[in-house]
Amino acid sequence: MSLQIKIEKTKFPKPKPNQDNLGFGQYFTDHMFIMNYTEGKGWHDPRIVPYGPIPFEPSTMVFHYGQAVFEGLKAYKTTDGRVLLFRPRKNMERINISNDRLCIPPVDPDFCVEALKTLVNIDKDWIPEAEGTSLYIRPFIIATDPYLGVRNSKTYMFMIILSPSGAYYPGGINPVKIYVEPRYVRAVRGGTGYAKTPGNYAASLKAQDEAHNEGYVQVLWLDGVEKKYVEEVGSMNVFFKINGEVITPALEGSILPGITRASTIDLLNHWGVKVTERRLSIQELYEASENGTLEEAFGTGTAAVISPIGELSWEGKKMIINNGKIGELSQKIYDTITGIQNGRLKDEFGWTLEVK
Amino acid sequence: MSLQIKIEKTKFPKPKPNQDNLGFGQYFTDHMFIMNYTEGKGWHDPRIVPYGPIPFEPSTMVFHYGQAVFEGLKAYKTTDGRVLLFRPRKNMERINISNDRLCIPPVDPDFCVEALKTLVNIDKDWIPEAEGTSLYIRPFIIATDPYLGVRNSKTYMFMIILSPSGAYYPGGINPVKIYVEPRYVRAVRGGTGYAKTPGNYAASLKAQDEAHNEGYVQVLWLDGVEKKYVEEVGSMNVFFKINGEVITPALEGSILPGITRASTIDLLNHWGVKVTERRLSIQELYEASENGTLEEAFGTGTAAVISPIGELSWEGKKMIINNGKIGELSQKIYDTITGIQNGRLKDEFGWTLEVK
Ligand SMILES: Cc1ncc(COP(=O)(O)O)c(C=O)c1O
Ligand SMILES: Cc1ncc(COP(=O)(O)O)c(C=O)c1O
Repeated sequence: MSLQIKIEKTKFPKPKPNQDNLGFGQYFTDHMFIMNYTEGKGWHDPRIVPYGPIPFEPSTMVFHYGQAVFEGLKAYKTTDGRVLLFRPRKNMERINISNDRLCIPPVDPDFCVEALKTLVNIDKDWIPEAEGTSLYIRPFIIATDPYLGVRNSKTYMFMIILSPSGAYYPGGINPVKIYVEPRYVRAVRGGTGYAKTPGNYAASLKAQDEAHNEGYVQVLWLDGVEKKYVEEVGSMNVFFKINGEVITPALEGSILPGITRASTIDLLNHWGVKVTERRLSIQELYEASENGTLEEAFGTGTAAVISPIGELSWEGKKMIINNGKIGELSQKIYDTITGIQNGRLKDEFGWTLEVK
Repeated sequence: MSLQIKIEKTKFPKPKPNQDNLGFGQYFTDHMFIMNYTEGKGWHDPRIVPYGPIPFEPSTMVFHYGQAVFEGLKAYKTTDGRVLLFRPRKNMERINISNDRLCIPPVDPDFCVEALKTLVNIDKDWIPEAEGTSLYIRPFIIATDPYLGVRNSKTYMFMIILSPSGAYYPGGINPVKIYVEPRYVRAVRGGTGYAKTPGNYAASLKAQDEAHNEGYVQVLWLDGVEKKYVEEVGSMNVFFKINGEVITPALEGSILPGITRASTIDLLNHWGVKVTERRLSIQELYEASENGTLEEAFGTGTAAVISPIGELSWEGKKMIINNGKIGELSQKIYDTITGIQNGRLKDEFGWTLEVK
């Protein structure tokens, strides 16, 4: 795509939010990127405009049939003032995998990375600088036909919005308690589990609510067919270290192919730690916990990077992992990935992209 | 809810669309109903305002996490000029079932029926009069927090919009060809299949596309666990008459509890026709087709009322039903329900509600 991005800067820059209290996903920068798709014309009119509300017809298809996809990644400010993105092309490749499942026309990943860099550069003063903070980046596509028939939309909007966000672990990393979900199902093979599409998240809210009520932070999903195999946790992929070997569920269509997951596997391979992608039953996990071979457990995702799991509750049985403390390997992965992201460690893998 | 509906009439009524070419869901009337929900305050500010676009922040939760539900029903103009709704309270009860699954606060069904009647009455000149036409009514609720964390929204909008729509069968009822979907899954028990929520429809687009490419109108979904039992067709529940008995899949959480389905069962019971809700495998259906006992097949739903199935294609095997013609019982159900809807038949069941 050799499109030219039109840029209209805001005349009314907003005050920046209090840097000590950013939270997640609640403040937005001064600008946003928009591009439209029209059947027969393709993606057109890429532009950066002041951030603000957009008028939508109540009949807009996304409200009714959820034809939409999204991505999530972060920009980090290094101590020497550079701005780094972490593997942004992977997100733009993944959005096309999601697009294919949702019957949304593909985007040009290189052009979208360009758009993203241009936008982040314009709003770079919004990137927070304190340890662990970042600029959360949300590219998303929605179906925009004003039409109530159930069919693919003929028009779409691709947008990128930016949200300065606080540290995930303001008080230091602490392991979480996770509830193994016995009843609700997030996704099943043949469904949309591998795509980053709104419906998957809507479907997960109820189980999340019930887990919260029981005092757990998130749920661990089991497969939708046999309710036996471990899938993923909330917005994270999941890894277990059992007897020295790291195991993570294989990508069989029902879980999101996480970019932090892929990076974790690359690191483990690089370090010579045995890592296996396969089915892992909750029963096997329980037995490993009982016989003392379940050494570490953690989730991986853009938001937390690594989220150690200190306790799993399964049908009333509790598995306490590493005495509820973060494991050595989990810590090493966390330190390495965040070190590469914030520029303190050498990026041996070519994972970061500088915005200038 | 003893809320007062504020009414603001449009100063610029739109010209009515050409009545011969209405199609479905593409024209909208002059007004819409809106009501907001705010945590701690409940549903508030019910109002009828001129139909038109509404500004939304790009961070509005429904775009990202699909927390939304909807309904669909119709208003009919009778030959003597009355306006009838068909079982509207059922839709408002069902929206609360969907709300519960999607963690959206419940609405007051009686108040919502009131709102619906008030709106339809204001726009009653928009109800088309030709045989088979109707005013399609779309109530829906969307999550409106401008926030990117995955959690329940704290604010929502409930809207009702109206769309004058053409006859489903402009050229007379003709049976459709349906493709039994072997690969994709719409819903699984423990998921959101029984709720009317956008994600279910987004998930169905890909299979629908592929069926269209093979020359089929819609897909027949099989259950997500065993890929063995018949579930529903596109936006319809499904019935089969085998050896004099009518069979429809039982409601086990993965299919929508259709209001036309319920009405069809009531009618069959009333007529003394044996009707059974149970699991029905595609293999059993195929055997019935082979041995000549599969007498009729049809879908039920608000849009078509009854849609006879003339052909099913399953793993390359074709089942031709009733020589590809509409069956006697299917026709009788269609005539009875549409007769009650448009006021030509006496409403013995108290299904219709007059708008005045
Ligand atoms: C369902 C789900 N699984 C896994 C992940 C982790 O993916 P990534 O590492 O690319 O952020 C995410 C979050 O992005 C997610 O939403
Ligand atoms: C998935 C699905 N199944 C079944 C139906 C039929 O339901 P009803 O008869 O209430 O229109 C619909 C349509 O409304 C639907 O969307």
